[in-house]
Amino acid sequence: MDARQQTQELFRGLRDSIVARLEELDGGRFVRRAWERPGGGGGEMSELRGQLFEKGGCNFSAVWGDRYPSVDRPATVDDEDRALGIAPPASEEVSGKPFFATGVSLVLHPRSPWVPVVHMNVRYLEAGEACWFGGGIDLTPFRPFADDTDHFHAALAAAAGDRYPRFKRWADEYFFIPHRNSARGVGGIFFDYLRDGLGLARSVGAAFLPAYVPIVERRRALPWSEADRQAQLRWRGRYVEFNLVYDRGTLFGLKTGGNVDAIFMSLPPLVAW
Amino acid sequence: MDARQQTQELFRGLRDSIVARLEELDGGRFVRRAWERPGGGGGEMSELRGQLFEKGGCNFSAVWGDRYPSVDRPATVDDEDRALGIAPPASEEVSGKPFFATGVSLVLHPRSPWVPVVHMNVRYLEAGEACWFGGGIDLTPFRPFADDTDHFHAALAAAAGDRYPRFKRWADEYFFIPHRNSARGVGGIFFDYLRDGLGLARSVGAAFLPAYVPIVERRRALPWSEADRQAQLRWRGRYVEFNLVYDRGTLFGLKTGGNVDAIFMSLPPLVAW
Repeated sequence: MDARQQTQELFRGLRDSIVARLEELDGGRFVRRAWERPGGGGGEMSELRGQLFEKGGCNFSAVWGDRYPSVDRPATVDDEDRALGIAPPASEEVSGKPFFATGVSLVLHPRSPWVPVVHMNVRYLEAGEACWFGGGIDLTPFRPFADDTDHFHAALAAAAGDRYPRFKRWADEYFFIPHRNSARGVGGIFFDYLRDGLGLARSVGAAFLPAYVPIVERRRALPWSEADRQAQLRWRGRYVEFNLVYDRGTLFGLKTGGNVDAIFMSLPPLVAW
Repeated sequence: MDARQQTQELFRGLRDSIVARLEELDGGRFVRRAWERPGGGGGEMSELRGQLFEKGGCNFSAVWGDRYPSVDRPATVDDEDRALGIAPPASEEVSGKPFFATGVSLVLHPRSPWVPVVHMNVRYLEAGEACWFGGGIDLTPFRPFADDTDHFHAALAAAAGDRYPRFKRWADEYFFIPHRNSARGVGGIFFDYLRDGLGLARSVGAAFLPAYVPIVERRRALPWSEADRQAQLRWRGRYVEFNLVYDRGTLFGLKTGGNVDAIFMSLPPLVAW
């Protein structure tokens, strides 16, 4: 079985197991819709409008085409990065070359202000002769609880092993909102251009439910007031601002004719400014 | 009186007359807050959270500094543009030079789905030896009424005179949402890099109330259903998407340390995705 088949099978399986567990938690059902990409490939969105999860999305996609677009590269890779297997291809190795990309992305916006927003993505890319993995998981609580943050990071540290400190730092840099001079949430892990990353993608994907579900179970029954709700709706604006102004995946999708419904799976169901 | 004083007096007066008329229409009061810019100058926000206008903002600012940032220029200026007085300065004439900028910006988000969103801006800039005016007015109805669109464009045509056709075309190009392949609203006028534009800025500013208020008065009493309201909240997402992904003024402000509250005056009070 080649890498394309292997990763797609991994990502679909991950989607299926996550969706099943979240449905069990929520009591509601994800609605699945397929879409096709005119240039090659497509995807399957799974969307939940539930009680516990006011909006949740878990999207699988596998797309391909003749010309990989030019994209920004991380400015520098140091010896620590190389030792961890991070090796961004040179622009001329990939720009304009045939490409294949598959991944699974998840964002959950709970109704309760005390249950944190969570995001997870794992992806595999081939362009020209290069191939690499990327992904991340991060937690965005309206009001952070130290116990939850500790549990979440401990689960990710177990999944990422000796790469955890570097990938945690990467998340802190990436999930930052410059115009508010503020982190998006309490961080997590982020990585990109990782060669031989199938094992890590597997363990990061497998870490999602044990990292997140215990937090949901601890916080879901806490009562909240209408004032908490209004504050939560205003706070959600920051998530929209980050995704529309800075998030590379969102902007890349919007500017290259991606599926708008799948891209905006990540945006909160109701937001106030 | 020099141009800086003259334009600031014009823009403050415009803000005062618009705010007064909108308070009369709404019954609520604008709250005024001043802010200072560390690099020089500042502004006055006026915000209304009313009945008719669920959220409205009318912001005056006058800022200055030592180094005008590099900014995108319109790609080409043709003979028609030159005949209308449009003359973008060359980048080397303005980049890094001392600058002064003053303007007034207004966005109204009515509560009723049948009363259109409206935006107005007029501004005056000096950078290096160059100075110019810019601005525009555009209407964004959830459900357009042909009578309203006709009235609005007739009022702008009267204000802009022989420059109306070019400035209308410019608005159609500018207020477009590529990822939805759709205009933001029913257009209006947009202009930039206009030399000797004081007269036009004055007449565009003066056109705002007569262009918009009759539409409000015609539509404000129409009843709407909860389903209309929900559809309006989803539709408002497009306005956020345009402003955060494409609007040059918003991105320029966010990326150069502008006042976040003043910038997000333009975002709708409540939005659903």
